[in-house]
Amino acid sequence: MIASAYPQLLAVFTRLHHFQHLAAIASWDQSAMMPSKGNEARSRALAEMDVLIHQTITDPALATLLDAAEQAPLDELERASVREMRRQWALSNLLPARLVEAQSLAGSRCEHAWRSQRPANDWAALLPNLRTVIGLAREEAALLAEHFGTSRYEALMNKHEPGMRCAELDSIFADVKSWLPALIRRVMDKQASQTVLQPVGPFPPEQQRALGLEVMKLLGFDFDAGRLDLSAHPFCAGVPEDVRITTRYRDDNFLQGLMGVIHETGHARYEQRLPRELVHLPIGRARTMGVHESQSLSFEMQLGRHAAFLSHLAPLIGQHLGTQDALQAGNLARLCTRVRPGHIRVDADELTYPAHVILRYEIERALIEGDIEVEDIPALWDEKMQASLGVDTRGNFKDGCMQDIHWPMGLIGYFPSYTLGAMYAAQYFATIRQQTPDLDRQIATGDLSAVMNWLESNIWSQASRWEISELMKRATGQTLQVSHFRKHLEQRYLAS
Amino acid sequence: MIASAYPQLLAVFTRLHHFQHLAAIASWDQSAMMPSKGNEARSRALAEMDVLIHQTITDPALATLLDAAEQAPLDELERASVREMRRQWALSNLLPARLVEAQSLAGSRCEHAWRSQRPANDWAALLPNLRTVIGLAREEAALLAEHFGTSRYEALMNKHEPGMRCAELDSIFADVKSWLPALIRRVMDKQASQTVLQPVGPFPPEQQRALGLEVMKLLGFDFDAGRLDLSAHPFCAGVPEDVRITTRYRDDNFLQGLMGVIHETGHARYEQRLPRELVHLPIGRARTMGVHESQSLSFEMQLGRHAAFLSHLAPLIGQHLGTQDALQAGNLARLCTRVRPGHIRVDADELTYPAHVILRYEIERALIEGDIEVEDIPALWDEKMQASLGVDTRGNFKDGCMQDIHWPMGLIGYFPSYTLGAMYAAQYFATIRQQTPDLDRQIATGDLSAVMNWLESNIWSQASRWEISELMKRATGQTLQVSHFRKHLEQRYLAS
Repeated sequence: MIASAYPQLLAVFTRLHHFQHLAAIASWDQSAMMPSKGNEARSRALAEMDVLIHQTITDPALATLLDAAEQAPLDELERASVREMRRQWALSNLLPARLVEAQSLAGSRCEHAWRSQRPANDWAALLPNLRTVIGLAREEAALLAEHFGTSRYEALMNKHEPGMRCAELDSIFADVKSWLPALIRRVMDKQASQTVLQPVGPFPPEQQRALGLEVMKLLGFDFDAGRLDLSAHPFCAGVPEDVRITTRYRDDNFLQGLMGVIHETGHARYEQRLPRELVHLPIGRARTMGVHESQSLSFEMQLGRHAAFLSHLAPLIGQHLGTQDALQAGNLARLCTRVRPGHIRVDADELTYPAHVILRYEIERALIEGDIEVEDIPALWDEKMQASLGVDTRGNFKDGCMQDIHWPMGLIGYFPSYTLGAMYAAQYFATIRQQTPDLDRQIATGDLSAVMNWLESNIWSQASRWEISELMKRATGQTLQVSHFRKHLEQRYLAS
Repeated sequence: MIASAYPQLLAVFTRLHHFQHLAAIASWDQSAMMPSKGNEARSRALAEMDVLIHQTITDPALATLLDAAEQAPLDELERASVREMRRQWALSNLLPARLVEAQSLAGSRCEHAWRSQRPANDWAALLPNLRTVIGLAREEAALLAEHFGTSRYEALMNKHEPGMRCAELDSIFADVKSWLPALIRRVMDKQASQTVLQPVGPFPPEQQRALGLEVMKLLGFDFDAGRLDLSAHPFCAGVPEDVRITTRYRDDNFLQGLMGVIHETGHARYEQRLPRELVHLPIGRARTMGVHESQSLSFEMQLGRHAAFLSHLAPLIGQHLGTQDALQAGNLARLCTRVRPGHIRVDADELTYPAHVILRYEIERALIEGDIEVEDIPALWDEKMQASLGVDTRGNFKDGCMQDIHWPMGLIGYFPSYTLGAMYAAQYFATIRQQTPDLDRQIATGDLSAVMNWLESNIWSQASRWEISELMKRATGQTLQVSHFRKHLEQRYLAS
């Protein structure tokens, strides 16, 4: 039994991988392809699959196999593999099938209705669905928190960020709050005297798409193992063997769609370059969602909004969208680093983005801990947006608390990962710059090999082999340090 | 137990319906969306689902439930429902899981490789894959034939055409063979003196697509419950709640793509209008594949190539593709009824089409009965194409025996359904014309209500409630009569 436990575990997790493959493709289709009347049947089918996956991972035989494998004489990689299996096992075995199915159904329904409720600014219609979703998330949080000995919110966050504590996050965010508002003001003062030309559209979606595909190619996206499509909210989905990213195009603002493409391409390359021989196992998947976001932000922020990269991109943009002064490299760099507090998180600049995240973190934590109710969200949102960014969101639900897909689909505890990702990315690039002093000149010529090789060796190929702190130490010589992020922002926004 | 058997059966078949939903969407994606490197993982995931579905339907508890339900006091609809459950149960329970999985994997692999082997005309490369696929089909045929007491080929055909015997099919095809060659010659002689203008392209795919969407609308396709996409070979897939059809566009021949769209829309409307409250049960699905094809052929042949319908379509075609003499109604009607023996089944005219089917029927029956081997196919194909249509296919595999997706994907015994479908459709329209003497004038004005209402009441809403012979008697007053088909062809091709 002990000797054969690990091979038996491989068989079970391979089966789970196949089930997850079908669920992932059907979910992508639901967001990118499916017509509206298909939703009820799709939601039921996906809920059935959630139950099946849950049944598979809660089979008592699996618990016995894990116990046995943990006593077996395994090599280091196999031990790490069992550790990640156990992590996934624990998360599922604490939840009753009834709850899993209810969450899947409620999330599908709420998200699908949100797609039309958001443009209609109809908070009242979203409210009852969202109340159900949050109620179920609280149930889940209570079950996980009791077992892991954490707070309820921390338990949900740990699904995406294993190992992160609310106390640590509070100290990280307190650090950011201590210097970010002043930095935003200084940068806005500095930029007040800058001349920035706005590109004049319309930019036809087909031309934006052609440009996006070209940029994905430059960034190494493998088109034989993935696609680019359209959806209401850009995302990266599918399976590592076939990665589906989406974006959206606005006639009057091509940069939004293009930066969406660059962002999702970062997620996609991580998935596409995970070690193929491990990809069916928990150890073969992305380390944390923060690390995942660190890939998209390495691409979008560290590279995509970098003056050197934009100087290489400018001629390509001109080729697809026609030439105009606003599309010159220098102006593009100013556009891409323009700081202006706004309503929408996904459109936010690099500097105000953390404020959007901290606001969501504070609200969703209070929601899960039971300190507030769903109907309290709009007022809190208005208050915090006003306080942190001076933005008025009163009555404007669609650009306020209804803007994100996360809560409607029941994804709670995820927002911190975005800002953790931005910080990891800044730390990677500090390391890459140390190893390649010539980096900016290389990037300006379109040679991204130093970046891609570093990410490949240090992040993509490592998958979930190491715990996050170990991964960061191996890659950058130290655990997460907020100082790299602050230095990056000050250098980019104040130095030049 | 007896009283609760039927409700318990409903639960099992609902679960199966959910699994089949995910498999159907993933299969559609594999053909219409998936990039090449995704295929290995997709095939494995689909094979896993095949095994799961097979396990579910071969669970011994299900056999007990069926036995009990067959003794329970059920109403007529419920009894028919159990009859269809039993039919599906029998087909699965005769096959070992090992065979089901092997067939799924072999079919996926062979079909995927065929996609590039066909354009490369590489029969030698297809051969080993196809040998595996046919070997497994023979295994399946032997198991089914032994149980049902039929010939091996008949057993495979009965998966698609329950109730049809090879002896009946032989007599139908002998009937056709007795008059078709002479009819083809007479029509070709008559058409030799006709002037037919060839539309001059190029017809850009986007414009063809816009036209296709408009025609689908005219034909009642519900775009909130389905999509039109591209694939190498047109098909109708997805689920009844969300029907996915595909076509392909040739720059120089828009009629091919348009007729593909009309054909698949026929399949799609059947699926979209199956009774929604039964769609999760075997009784709620299409009666036979011949009936399915009778829908596509009612749309493509009875309507799509009908002079009255084309007179309504002509202005629409002009709007999308520009005006030219070749796009006038009269010329379109001549183009759409032009008889010319050719290589490709899916491009064949209505008159030579049955010859393509009979050839495939004869070859695949011999293959399954063990009278010939896979390597014998090309020589037999050449000989039969020469004999029946005077077409030379020697060395031209891609337009010969490699042209269809059916054999590579392991779909054997399906071809007869196409010609049975053409015959059913002719019989429907003979009935509709009797009930609506004014039909052609209505069609010419774009009023398709008589046709659609008849199909809705007599075919779509009936699903699998009746056995095929009963369905035909209720709809048309008699079982299948070849004479309607012959009369239709003679009237369309000789009378005018």
